[in-house]
Amino acid sequence: MRAVVVVMAPGASTAQVNAVVERIEAVGGEAFVSRGVERTIIGLVGDVAHFGSLNLRAMPGVGDVVRVSTPYKLVSRDHHPEMSTVLVGGVPIGPGRFTLIAGPCAVETPEQTLAAAQMAKAAGATLLRGGAYKPRTSPYAFQGLGEAGLRILADVRAETGMPIVTEVVDAHDVDLVAGYADMLQIGTRNAQNFGLLQAVGSVNKPVMLKRGMTATIEEWLMAAEYVAQRGNLDIVLCERGIRTFEQSTRNTLDISAVPVAHALSHLPVVVDPSHSGGRRDLVVPLTRAAIAVGADGVIVDVHPEPAAALCDGPQALVGDDLLELAAACRDLPPAVGRLPAGR
Amino acid sequence: MRAVVVVMAPGASTAQVNAVVERIEAVGGEAFVSRGVERTIIGLVGDVAHFGSLNLRAMPGVGDVVRVSTPYKLVSRDHHPEMSTVLVGGVPIGPGRFTLIAGPCAVETPEQTLAAAQMAKAAGATLLRGGAYKPRTSPYAFQGLGEAGLRILADVRAETGMPIVTEVVDAHDVDLVAGYADMLQIGTRNAQNFGLLQAVGSVNKPVMLKRGMTATIEEWLMAAEYVAQRGNLDIVLCERGIRTFEQSTRNTLDISAVPVAHALSHLPVVVDPSHSGGRRDLVVPLTRAAIAVGADGVIVDVHPEPAAALCDGPQALVGDDLLELAAACRDLPPAVGRLPAGR
Amino acid sequence: MRAVVVVMAPGASTAQVNAVVERIEAVGGEAFVSRGVERTIIGLVGDVAHFGSLNLRAMPGVGDVVRVSTPYKLVSRDHHPEMSTVLVGGVPIGPGRFTLIAGPCAVETPEQTLAAAQMAKAAGATLLRGGAYKPRTSPYAFQGLGEAGLRILADVRAETGMPIVTEVVDAHDVDLVAGYADMLQIGTRNAQNFGLLQAVGSVNKPVMLKRGMTATIEEWLMAAEYVAQRGNLDIVLCERGIRTFEQSTRNTLDISAVPVAHALSHLPVVVDPSHSGGRRDLVVPLTRAAIAVGADGVIVDVHPEPAAALCDGPQALVGDDLLELAAACRDLPPAVGRLPAGR
Amino acid sequence: MRAVVVVMAPGASTAQVNAVVERIEAVGGEAFVSRGVERTIIGLVGDVAHFGSLNLRAMPGVGDVVRVSTPYKLVSRDHHPEMSTVLVGGVPIGPGRFTLIAGPCAVETPEQTLAAAQMAKAAGATLLRGGAYKPRTSPYAFQGLGEAGLRILADVRAETGMPIVTEVVDAHDVDLVAGYADMLQIGTRNAQNFGLLQAVGSVNKPVMLKRGMTATIEEWLMAAEYVAQRGNLDIVLCERGIRTFEQSTRNTLDISAVPVAHALSHLPVVVDPSHSGGRRDLVVPLTRAAIAVGADGVIVDVHPEPAAALCDGPQALVGDDLLELAAACRDLPPAVGRLPAGR
Repeated sequence: MRAVVVVMAPGASTAQVNAVVERIEAVGGEAFVSRGVERTIIGLVGDVAHFGSLNLRAMPGVGDVVRVSTPYKLVSRDHHPEMSTVLVGGVPIGPGRFTLIAGPCAVETPEQTLAAAQMAKAAGATLLRGGAYKPRTSPYAFQGLGEAGLRILADVRAETGMPIVTEVVDAHDVDLVAGYADMLQIGTRNAQNFGLLQAVGSVNKPVMLKRGMTATIEEWLMAAEYVAQRGNLDIVLCERGIRTFEQSTRNTLDISAVPVAHALSHLPVVVDPSHSGGRRDLVVPLTRAAIAVGADGVIVDVHPEPAAALCDGPQALVGDDLLELAAACRDLPPAVGRLPAGR
Repeated sequence: MRAVVVVMAPGASTAQVNAVVERIEAVGGEAFVSRGVERTIIGLVGDVAHFGSLNLRAMPGVGDVVRVSTPYKLVSRDHHPEMSTVLVGGVPIGPGRFTLIAGPCAVETPEQTLAAAQMAKAAGATLLRGGAYKPRTSPYAFQGLGEAGLRILADVRAETGMPIVTEVVDAHDVDLVAGYADMLQIGTRNAQNFGLLQAVGSVNKPVMLKRGMTATIEEWLMAAEYVAQRGNLDIVLCERGIRTFEQSTRNTLDISAVPVAHALSHLPVVVDPSHSGGRRDLVVPLTRAAIAVGADGVIVDVHPEPAAALCDGPQALVGDDLLELAAACRDLPPAVGRLPAGR
Repeated sequence: MRAVVVVMAPGASTAQVNAVVERIEAVGGEAFVSRGVERTIIGLVGDVAHFGSLNLRAMPGVGDVVRVSTPYKLVSRDHHPEMSTVLVGGVPIGPGRFTLIAGPCAVETPEQTLAAAQMAKAAGATLLRGGAYKPRTSPYAFQGLGEAGLRILADVRAETGMPIVTEVVDAHDVDLVAGYADMLQIGTRNAQNFGLLQAVGSVNKPVMLKRGMTATIEEWLMAAEYVAQRGNLDIVLCERGIRTFEQSTRNTLDISAVPVAHALSHLPVVVDPSHSGGRRDLVVPLTRAAIAVGADGVIVDVHPEPAAALCDGPQALVGDDLLELAAACRDLPPAVGRLPAGR
Repeated sequence: MRAVVVVMAPGASTAQVNAVVERIEAVGGEAFVSRGVERTIIGLVGDVAHFGSLNLRAMPGVGDVVRVSTPYKLVSRDHHPEMSTVLVGGVPIGPGRFTLIAGPCAVETPEQTLAAAQMAKAAGATLLRGGAYKPRTSPYAFQGLGEAGLRILADVRAETGMPIVTEVVDAHDVDLVAGYADMLQIGTRNAQNFGLLQAVGSVNKPVMLKRGMTATIEEWLMAAEYVAQRGNLDIVLCERGIRTFEQSTRNTLDISAVPVAHALSHLPVVVDPSHSGGRRDLVVPLTRAAIAVGADGVIVDVHPEPAAALCDGPQALVGDDLLELAAACRDLPPAVGRLPAGR
């Protein structure tokens, strides 16, 4: 579903124009030629997946090649105009409601995980997040409990009734993690790990796809297309901040990405206000912004004792902050036409 | 009010450490030395404005110099913990309320300006924006009507009662513009035009200071300090998007900058949802996000006939979009503890 | 000299297409319509300066507007295919040679300036840089000696025979500074200070135009067009690093900008290896890279006593580093077909 | 080998300071306390790998935590001051010489691969690059020939004597690819695919580690540390451009990264001038810059018929460009004290 415009260089010959047209037609494309005073412009239209491999830009006389439509299909609203709702262990994420996902960044102990889940539930969360496999920049950092962590999460689900969202970091762990989890999370560092994307596309569990910290919105949707192409359309997009020159926050939450992604794709979009800012004092304001801008949910770090957390303690909520979060998730969604968290 | 930490290189000699300490003490600073197994760290504390000129980084044996506190004073909350309210022609911007500033990007004709002002007022705006001097990337683009535009603004103010916010682009126009305007706007391209900042710091009119499109929050507050240092503390900060790799929006609205700036400075912070996204469909969602995150107001482009606008028509609101904006500015501020726009 | 492509939305009506064509023709443009299966594409060609104000993007049925050629003329190679040489007090900068410009970041005293000039000259520099007016992020930092500094520079020129490159930061100082200087420098923070650009465009002195630290190459050339449009085509472009997420260097030297700017513009391009990296140990390697990539010169900080410098001491060269710089500027240009520095 | 500085908030109590010190000492760290007029600063020194998990930032009274030294060890020059040479099938990459690696972006046919290898060899290349597994942003793009491509590479190695550099994209293909390849390449999209990094760290083949397109230099070295920690220290770093706001090049080649990485790490650093710019006309100038700045080699796309290439044809060299590349790689390294390519 893409259109491409080829702008010939000034002075391109008729033979050069014809060569471009022939190459396009050779792969079944339609080419329309506009001759101007200084330049000739060739438009290509139709559903030709492999225009990219035509290398038009390398042909003699070609000045520029401009792509003007989307390179993804299954996740696009062109393909599927109605917004989707994704069910996670029976809990819906999508239009008309606001979903709070909360839990500890990392599963550490049964007690810590249960306490965090109970805090989360009391704040209105209906889904429990928690990491058993942690992708860490340093090989010397805590890497997660692995399957032991998954078992703790399953026990806490049995105790609290909250379905589980947890990260998978390696394609060959997908079946194992899917055996415990209700939703598989793909982290920001794996946003272009295509083997992993295809692997989660092949199982029957919904996927939370974090935006790469330096991915464009288009690349994020392309990553979702990798999952969808294997048959799994139960995808929730998660905006978690992008890398910029600003240093006062860990990353810059791209709040505009929520309405932009909603305009381009039928998939639900949630926001991670904890990891984008990396600061506890920003979690509640950014959650309010996410609700107001139209996000379908937020995913938030909570921890019973942040100062002792093995991972990202500086941003985990506790105490009064959590009460404020609960109030925001209860009171603000109705002001923008959505059911509050927990309903 | 800054602290600096000097980290000596591994193996730095005692003489090198002493030389650093002496240089610090020579300008009245206090130095505290911590000797570790591998490295020695020297802390500098106190109100020493000219640490920067000490060139400690260039001294033998110095590995790194890390600044750890803020280089601005007058605009900081350390200096002035209570949040400020700025009055613009009698209209307050600050804590407890939400202010809508709206109008055309550029003043074109008396009719267009009056029509835009009436649209703005009907939507709840209490301040009229409108540009008579336009800084444009291309020398071939429309540069604004100049003083003729200021006269149109003054006439529309007389007609509607709305005080005027308008941009000044040259230090030597400041007195002229201040003769008509109620608030002087400094645009993003002039965010480090220090002569202009000092000039608006010397007049008795409030200033709206847009963040440079690639300024850090610290640089933005330093720019405000330039204004304040000349005696004018009636400054409103305006977040208007920063430059990133994302291409679907003109700039990336840094929504986190609102609570971050509020934590560092007592100045009010407003958001420009029109210029950050550069897309009409994002103005209302981003306005909602701005209200929810705690902004003190928004500044929005409206135009009676956007398709004919001489400047930034693609983002100007009209018709139904404007009704939606009005509803958001009326209904959402109370949900976050603020008076609605127009009150 | 620009071409614009209008991509109509899927399902745009014939009336909508016709409306776009009419608006283009109403301002003297030529429109060529290509109807595809899914989309219609309209090409605009010709020398129509005000396409930007047509607001085609805001018209009904328009999906996207893509610009495909350059918005500047006088500084472009389309307009002037042969590369230009700019003479600064008789010293050429341009094709076939490599020019070393060196001196202290800031003029502090007659002795320091003369010593730095002699160091620079010994290293092969034929032009002396030195700042009398310093744009500083902090209002509390050293702002330069002003006219007293210009007088020192003039004295040192008389002593050494080196023409002077010095910065001007305010439009209303241009005549004063031009009275002393051989070349006017526009700093990175003023890269979009259009009043200042026009002011230096109106005097009869060559201009060194630093790239804004967050300007695209196109914006940099547009800034040059502001200068050129007032009649001054003696412009040298200076690449000095752009703002990115990388933190180990002050800015990221965009070395590709040299061949890219050379392909687009006939103006000479020099590189500032001192300010881009902000580290003394990078100045020589980046100078070598600049020579090899085809830069017409470099502008380098030297200081007789960097540890005492009032400005940017950490990057100023002295001693052995300066000998290495001299060797690079003497030996490497011939390896890429240029006369060495000093010849 | 890291030092950390804790800056207490103004007004932090003695009890709060003591609590920080105790937590540091509890894990075997040394803490040095500097009490200033306004603030207390605590320095931590020693080889304590898990300071990160202490969550000092979350403790009461802590204002900021600043890290001041490197979080990697095995790849650092602190650990191994002498620069390393990596042997790839007997071909050295490292100090004192310049190595040209060239070949097609993707292996397409035996004929195309052999022709490209012969072109590469004639230009002075001693190592053959070629991709059999291609990580592509779009699931609809050509993904490579897989093992069939590896067999073609092996045949061409037998024919030309050139050892092979080829990419591996999935941890579970590492053994298969290592069975054919002389060097395993990790692509930019996998720069934080930690499972893959550990997998290539466990085989006995040298690794070319591309910098993530949005990785800081520190993160790049941390990724190398993941490889090294598994016992494989035969790592060559490859700078291939970072993501910035500049649009005229695909990415921005961070040329400063070469001397910065050389200062921090003993590993060789090569540059990819083809993928960073994404433009054929930049490959030779950027190669010259890479040689001059001190890179240990470049890796370049060549293709016998770029206009027909299935991958990245716009940047592949052929004909005269290749002759220019050969000349640069032969003549320029001696000017910076290195043996030329092919020697």
